[in-house]
Amino acid sequence: MFHLYIGHKNYSSWSLRPWLLMKHFGIPFAETVVAVSGKGANASHRGYSDNGLVPCLHDDNFRVWDTIAICEYLAEQYPEMWPADRQARARARSICAEMHSGFGALRSQLPMNVRLRAQGVAPSPEVAADVARIIAIWRNAREIAATLNIAGDYLFGEFSIADAMYAPVIWRLYCYGLALPDDAQAYVNTMLAHPAMREWEAAALAETTRLPFDKLVDQFGGARV
Amino acid sequence: MFHLYIGHKNYSSWSLRPWLLMKHFGIPFAETVVAVSGKGANASHRGYSDNGLVPCLHDDNFRVWDTIAICEYLAEQYPEMWPADRQARARARSICAEMHSGFGALRSQLPMNVRLRAQGVAPSPEVAADVARIIAIWRNAREIAATLNIAGDYLFGEFSIADAMYAPVIWRLYCYGLALPDDAQAYVNTMLAHPAMREWEAAALAETTRLPFDKLVDQFGGARV
Repeated sequence: MFHLYIGHKNYSSWSLRPWLLMKHFGIPFAETVVAVSGKGANASHRGYSDNGLVPCLHDDNFRVWDTIAICEYLAEQYPEMWPADRQARARARSICAEMHSGFGALRSQLPMNVRLRAQGVAPSPEVAADVARIIAIWRNAREIAATLNIAGDYLFGEFSIADAMYAPVIWRLYCYGLALPDDAQAYVNTMLAHPAMREWEAAALAETTRLPFDKLVDQFGGARV
Repeated sequence: MFHLYIGHKNYSSWSLRPWLLMKHFGIPFAETVVAVSGKGANASHRGYSDNGLVPCLHDDNFRVWDTIAICEYLAEQYPEMWPADRQARARARSICAEMHSGFGALRSQLPMNVRLRAQGVAPSPEVAADVARIIAIWRNAREIAATLNIAGDYLFGEFSIADAMYAPVIWRLYCYGLALPDDAQAYVNTMLAHPAMREWEAAALAETTRLPFDKLVDQFGGARV
């Protein structure tokens, strides 16, 4: 039995990734939302997570932590979570790992805040560079899918771990209202229409907890939903 | 044919990981050391690396970047790079991913500098917390290896990707002279004795490039070799 420990859905970008992946592939799991401070590891969370961070997946009593490791653990049982083509799979892993350790400006300056509805936020040069790199990554993935004649509107055609890894970016681009080229906007729209993304949004909007860094929202003057 | 693009061996902690992994498993590869600034992505490096970062592995003309993705790409061809036991393999991936995105204090305050020989550096509280976590991670891995009756002095008994991922930590603990409990020191010694670690050290010591952040060394008053 899988049990996924996650943070608040409005804020926890890391939690969204395995949650969305498991929902998409129809894997049954229990979930527990735990309070997080937004400041990293929390010793009081060691009860469910060895490093005090979410997400943490329990497979019965065995703990798997860190999103990359959770995804690989699941993909051993559900190989269809990665692209079937060897090079496409390698590329998917490259862009997932790049997301795992990169894009610091985007992540710190425009934190995921699902309930925010800002419009036309002007990104800093650092955020603009991150977004430009993401657009290039998405384009390259779509080119690979086209070359391999894989149907579907996700990054590598069919939904994969790569889509789950970039899902928090979807909320950032949407909630801060960043302008995008047509192809990137089309992919954002595809992801926003995913039933599990809608389910996550509804749960985030129903949350009442407001973390301290939510004040970052005010500078953008966006409405909250 | 594999071709690995890496940074200076004295400084490039990320480069050490796939290099050591390929050396340990006897995988033939060409290598090119490229100049890096120590400040992250460099647009001029896009010629060999899509994101301007090292390491980047070329498999003929196909590029695989980011250490985690390179390791997984190689492990598809060399499954012995991961522990054979499913849970041990999951744990190895968890601690590799934790290293991939964590330990910011250790990485920023005690950057890898293979030629440094400081003694008894007193770590900041944040670095001490990182080191304590690493010691706990190593202990847990060794316990898993013992439970599974796997022989060998590496983290999960036999050398795996996990050892490669923590290899730069070995140099940090050694070069800054941090005090360690016996079990952690024993593992550090095991890794320092690895022929490929010795080969890396010799190459690092032969380098003449000094990056700007090498001035961090001065505050520790360590001799340079």
